Amino acid sequence: MDGVLADTAAQFREWYFRESGIRLGPNAFDGLPEDECLPDGAVRRYLYQPNFFRTTPLVPGAQEAIAELMEQFDVYIVSAAMEFPNSLAEKLDWLREHFPFISWHNIIFCGTKAIINTDYMVDDHVKNLDRFPGKTFLFTAPHNLKVRHHQRVSSWEEAIRALKTELAFSYRGNSL
Amino acid sequence: MDGVLADTAAQFREWYFRESGIRLGPNAFDGLPEDECLPDGAVRRYLYQPNFFRTTPLVPGAQEAIAELMEQFDVYIVSAAMEFPNSLAEKLDWLREHFPFISWHNIIFCGTKAIINTDYMVDDHVKNLDRFPGKTFLFTAPHNLKVRHHQRVSSWEEAIRALKTELAFSYRGNSL
Repeated sequence: MDGVLADTAAQFREWYFRESGIRLGPNAFDGLPEDECLPDGAVRRYLYQPNFFRTTPLVPGAQEAIAELMEQFDVYIVSAAMEFPNSLAEKLDWLREHFPFISWHNIIFCGTKAIINTDYMVDDHVKNLDRFPGKTFLFTAPHNLKVRHHQRVSSWEEAIRALKTELAFSYRGNSL
Repeated sequence: MDGVLADTAAQFREWYFRESGIRLGPNAFDGLPEDECLPDGAVRRYLYQPNFFRTTPLVPGAQEAIAELMEQFDVYIVSAAMEFPNSLAEKLDWLREHFPFISWHNIIFCGTKAIINTDYMVDDHVKNLDRFPGKTFLFTAPHNLKVRHHQRVSSWEEAIRALKTELAFSYRGNSL
């Protein structure tokens, strides 16, 4: 969800601007671990504040992409939300606002994603992808620019193309 | 969680007593689907009320059993909580109160349990067990007394015995 559907980096820049008056550019966090994007522990502080998750802007193209993928895939939204208890209700409200077409049946809030069993996973964090037994797609985020060991998708346009290619191959495999 | 760690049936009887003054016995729900345990849609009504999940009593032996199992297993608490958004924070607070030794890493709130991938599942609902690829254990609840197609455990004592037997067999398998 964060970094894939919700543009967490943009939200960090916005909240930092409100607090400090300093406007950071879209590449300000490039290559930095998420926790170290902002000075004075601001990242962790924002994550525990009410409304952070509720008001995060969308990653461009995410709504259209999920709607399109749902025509051919069972799409599950899996969010490592359990570390931030405030976020549970906020994330659910956020999904209802921006993705009203996703059923509650298909939403999972967890601590670790280690026990999630789907065919594909699109995620911005290697810690989630490294332990996943299915096919992985690394969604580009400022903190993962140096990662090389997962297939990278840099936009929802690319993600859709990659997933549909996978599906085409799996159909072909089944027919042989 | 419900029906396995949290004694949902006892909570239904208690809330019904408070509302109606009628005290139902522990076998009053035997064989009935959960939704039909109480008249006038009371079950669904209670599920949406604040504090229902927060104040549910424990299933006898659940705390001790989870603590004991955690010595030998990675234990995950998986709750189909997404249908009742109020329940998310309440369930998390309930777990913190009664199971403070369970890390947030090991808690999952979901819609369907169909994408959960563990070796074993202990659950009171066949709809969850039927689609699970690992070994299943049906935890006895009033609504599942007629079910025959999963290995039944009628208490946490029995569940521990069954799980430890499984583990012993899997160790033996590995050493052959």
